[in-house]
Amino acid sequence: MSQEAKTQPGSGSYQTSGGASERKRVMVIGGDGYCGWATALHLSNKNYEVAIVDSLVRRLFDHQLGLDSLTPISSIHNRIRRWKSETGKTIELYIGDICDFEFLSETFESFKPDAVVHFGEQRSAPYSMIDRSRAVFTQNNNVIGTLNVLFAIKEFREDCHLVKLGTMGEYGTPNIDIEEGYITITHNGRTDTLPYPKQASSFYHLSKVHDSNNIAFTCKAWGMRATDLNQGVVYGVRTDETDMHEELCNRLDYDGVFGTALNRFCVQAAVGHPLTVYGKGGQTRGYLDIRDTIQCVELAIANPAQRGEFRVFNQFTEQFSVNELASLVTKAGEKLGLNVETKSVPNPRVEAEEHYYNAKHTKLIELGLKPHLLSDSLLDSLLNFAIQFNDRVDVKQIMPSVSWRKIGAKPKTVAA
Amino acid sequence: MSQEAKTQPGSGSYQTSGGASERKRVMVIGGDGYCGWATALHLSNKNYEVAIVDSLVRRLFDHQLGLDSLTPISSIHNRIRRWKSETGKTIELYIGDICDFEFLSETFESFKPDAVVHFGEQRSAPYSMIDRSRAVFTQNNNVIGTLNVLFAIKEFREDCHLVKLGTMGEYGTPNIDIEEGYITITHNGRTDTLPYPKQASSFYHLSKVHDSNNIAFTCKAWGMRATDLNQGVVYGVRTDETDMHEELCNRLDYDGVFGTALNRFCVQAAVGHPLTVYGKGGQTRGYLDIRDTIQCVELAIANPAQRGEFRVFNQFTEQFSVNELASLVTKAGEKLGLNVETKSVPNPRVEAEEHYYNAKHTKLIELGLKPHLLSDSLLDSLLNFAIQFNDRVDVKQIMPSVSWRKIGAKPKTVAA
Repeated sequence: MSQEAKTQPGSGSYQTSGGASERKRVMVIGGDGYCGWATALHLSNKNYEVAIVDSLVRRLFDHQLGLDSLTPISSIHNRIRRWKSETGKTIELYIGDICDFEFLSETFESFKPDAVVHFGEQRSAPYSMIDRSRAVFTQNNNVIGTLNVLFAIKEFREDCHLVKLGTMGEYGTPNIDIEEGYITITHNGRTDTLPYPKQASSFYHLSKVHDSNNIAFTCKAWGMRATDLNQGVVYGVRTDETDMHEELCNRLDYDGVFGTALNRFCVQAAVGHPLTVYGKGGQTRGYLDIRDTIQCVELAIANPAQRGEFRVFNQFTEQFSVNELASLVTKAGEKLGLNVETKSVPNPRVEAEEHYYNAKHTKLIELGLKPHLLSDSLLDSLLNFAIQFNDRVDVKQIMPSVSWRKIGAKPKTVAA
Repeated sequence: MSQEAKTQPGSGSYQTSGGASERKRVMVIGGDGYCGWATALHLSNKNYEVAIVDSLVRRLFDHQLGLDSLTPISSIHNRIRRWKSETGKTIELYIGDICDFEFLSETFESFKPDAVVHFGEQRSAPYSMIDRSRAVFTQNNNVIGTLNVLFAIKEFREDCHLVKLGTMGEYGTPNIDIEEGYITITHNGRTDTLPYPKQASSFYHLSKVHDSNNIAFTCKAWGMRATDLNQGVVYGVRTDETDMHEELCNRLDYDGVFGTALNRFCVQAAVGHPLTVYGKGGQTRGYLDIRDTIQCVELAIANPAQRGEFRVFNQFTEQFSVNELASLVTKAGEKLGLNVETKSVPNPRVEAEEHYYNAKHTKLIELGLKPHLLSDSLLDSLLNFAIQFNDRVDVKQIMPSVSWRKIGAKPKTVAA
């Protein structure tokens, strides 16, 4: 944990050694995505100097798989223009692939970031389990992209703070408490504090474990400063900034590939589709409101890791089992007059469906996180949001179509 | 650990359900390299049906970096022809890159392996720390190559046993005993057996950690059977098979990129170069004779992992510190009339130079390994071998030229 005085976020500026106030420069890689877009707007609103770096490949995945966000989303160019016209604030935009080091070098030399928030990865477990080529794409894209970011920081901005999005899924479901990144082990009479053992359960989750290991090494070998945010499942869609104009609206995924549990359930409830519980539904994970995602990222930036420090925070606010979420959505739906059913479907994943789960998440609270806990009002709002857009729902996208066991070496093509 | 009855190796054959005796088919990926070549010949000699799969890129690295084996080595084509003329045994040869899945698929469909021994990775820590492009090459080549092997087994030979070469370097130097792959942890009153925490210290070592995590997942999700051999530092060069003819001679690396501690010291002693101890020399690691490498691989093949089992063996026979090795080589050299000096050079790596180290290595012994411990006679033989070829030594290759801290994003070119 950083030894620096705790800094409350909100100004985006810091004192230089000469006493002048300068705005912190934050590069948001993957700033056109779900968490990235909300984060970029939030940081810009809080007076950080923000640049978005994005290849837009997430939009290509939707085209290729025949999927779409529940919400209509504007082009990144129009989003940024609208942000400027609404707030007067400029977000710089660099379109390109961070796996292309020449491109990444140019963005570093041009923007000169003080912090890099790295959301720029293929982030869907089912996507990584479609076929061999997507498994390979996911690991190559995520691991090499992150290696390039590490080298760019070392080469061009060695004091820059890397804030890397990891996932709680790196830990799997061990039968002991999950700590934040490290665990102190006493074994045969000796004691050491070591990286917490990881048991990831998809090629996507594994790519995040690989990233964590690579980053930890560079902190030790090069004196990098890095924060790994092992994030839980994010729900919700509206933030103060995206609410300013419909052209700033965030994406909301409900499909079987990119949709995550709670968001997907709300859309299912809104269109009268049974809530699809995979297997027994005892799978328990950490969850958080997207308004807390952006708060956590800002806290990490405002309180950077030390040089040489690989800091790990578990970024979630509450634990729920899938069955508990289904029950909450059912009750909230009934209040709105919806008839919500739940259906167990065969689990497409290989995972424990009943297990112990107790993950620590105090470090971000200590830094000042004020959680938005899952409440009736949030569920009402999410359900109403889903109802508002329910003519855009394509029910064919809802069911899981990717099997952890049946993934093949041959490319899986999507029929027209 | 496998529940099957322990099988003594040596026949290379097994009983089919119909009662006929068939030879086990073993694909040795990386079979033109140092450990791979010795293993391929040994398995062929023991009556296994052997195919070598190799892209020969290791030979290209030597050309590119201006390095060469101490020993003159024949082309893989001549090696295999000579093996046939000496023993009457055929080794099949597939030249290609396992990162090319189309090539790998063809080799699987053609050869139909019962076991795959996977040495086919960039295996030098310094090579992975030369520059960004070699760091990226190492992780891409090793991780994607192994993913392809996993998919090929799943697609074409799902019962095939993967024997994967890992490294003891995956564990780093924790302040507690190193176990074989897993550790039982009691924490806050609960207990679980989890993957042993890894702390790798180069992009190469990290690539092996990534592989281990990927393989463990496929054992769980797909029911793969795999053995991860976390090998120590290998020394020696002669085996019964490579001794049969000079055209079967194995490579011996003494340079600062591919040379490893004991082999390098023997060559240094043979040419009157001071033994180059990096830093304080207290770095302690596991070591083994190359004759034990081939014995261990055969034991793993003869006693395969169960379906769904990810079995981890620590493959070494003795621990030494660098200072202990230097002292042993000095004494052995003096017996041969050599004047051996030792020189401490600045450590090009980032690593603990004085540390606790106690790594378990009983599982291969339980399977029947009879270790060749490091002895005066082996050191004599290695030193005499080095003296025999000392007119081939290029002293410019000896000193470390790669720095863990100074690695840059820009390509490091080698001057003519």
